[in-house]
Amino acid sequence: MNLIYYPAACSLADHIALIEAGLSHKIISIDHDRMTEDGRDFRALNPKGYIPALELEDGSILTENPVILNYIAETSGKLLPRDGIARWRALEALAFMASEIHGSYQPFFRDFPEPEKARAREKLEKCFAILSAQLGEKPFLVGDEMTIADCYLFWVLMVAPKSGVELPENLGALFARLRARPSVARALAEEGLS
Amino acid sequence: MNLIYYPAACSLADHIALIEAGLSHKIISIDHDRMTEDGRDFRALNPKGYIPALELEDGSILTENPVILNYIAETSGKLLPRDGIARWRALEALAFMASEIHGSYQPFFRDFPEPEKARAREKLEKCFAILSAQLGEKPFLVGDEMTIADCYLFWVLMVAPKSGVELPENLGALFARLRARPSVARALAEEGLS
Ligand SMILES: N[C@@H](CCC(=O)N[C@@H](CS)C(=O)NCC(=O)O)C(=O)O
Ligand SMILES: N[C@@H](CCC(=O)N[C@@H](CS)C(=O)NCC(=O)O)C(=O)O
Repeated sequence: MNLIYYPAACSLADHIALIEAGLSHKIISIDHDRMTEDGRDFRALNPKGYIPALELEDGSILTENPVILNYIAETSGKLLPRDGIARWRALEALAFMASEIHGSYQPFFRDFPEPEKARAREKLEKCFAILSAQLGEKPFLVGDEMTIADCYLFWVLMVAPKSGVELPENLGALFARLRARPSVARALAEEGLS
Repeated sequence: MNLIYYPAACSLADHIALIEAGLSHKIISIDHDRMTEDGRDFRALNPKGYIPALELEDGSILTENPVILNYIAETSGKLLPRDGIARWRALEALAFMASEIHGSYQPFFRDFPEPEKARAREKLEKCFAILSAQLGEKPFLVGDEMTIADCYLFWVLMVAPKSGVELPENLGALFARLRARPSVARALAEEGLS
């Protein structure tokens, strides 16, 4: 499968997951004109126009970060407990980050007016407090093992400084631990971010 | 299991799914002060403060609409193909509606300034076009059978008029077909919306 990505964008989560899960894959970047590095028009492949997009063996395109991550987990049998509450907590955290946090980063990515930034900061603070409470003293967000939720969380925490909102201590520490993992280091290097 | 809901809010999707899947459940509303109708402080149950929240048999609370819907499908063995691409398309549509559409309704729910409404309308138009293309001539969003994606879509389409964005014809027709289903009619009646 091919991951269509943009360096440092939220596709980093899927990139980390693919490496961590040991799935055979290729990564294909897009440029600002939405052409893929192998010369295809990205908008024709994915009318939504955004990344991440996962190109499956039959050429079909899967979108939406939490779903691509779930697909990677289901295909590899890794990074997501098959059952039990930890499975649902991982999927819940993914949906939370995608629906509540990702959108709250827009005002900083796109330089929206200050009142919108202030509102986003207030919301992000609440969101980080919820993730921090969920993490507690555990090694990873939902338990002793890394899951796809941590892959997405890594990107969320990497971007947080752009918002000016300070991270709770345990989230900062998890970020540092994740960063030290070979899978994360390799994904960052492959995206030119080392 | 108990669904904690607010009438006409996005918890309607889960309410429809619970009925359609034939799962034994109770619905418990919250009021404006976030007290449940059985007298509990909702914020203590769910620090996120928002609905839907699904209270499981052991008392734990599951949040995030796409995940609650997935849980209902997995528990009942209904409303989501177990494998194949239709499964992923249903989950993808849910994540899309939760991350791209739900947030774009905020400016209308909360009466944000007009420029934010205009931006949201532009985005919603694109989002509805994507859902319309996905639906095509099919009876339901991902195929011949109703899935949890249609449950959430029903709520999305019900709220659309608040935004002033017109719905593509095939989405309007699906809305009418869904509304005529006994499960949907019962959910609407139970929320006082008939
Ligand atoms: N709902 C999508 C959102 C993806 C998204 O917004 N991706 C950003 C990068 S982090 C992007 O491609 N933005 C460019 C654009 O929307 O044109 C998901 O969760 O995957
Ligand atoms: N990310 C959540 C969002 C849920 C949400 O925003 N629910 C709304 C009702 S449609 C709500 O309870 N809003 C009240 C509030 O946020 O205080 C999900 O997808 O379930």
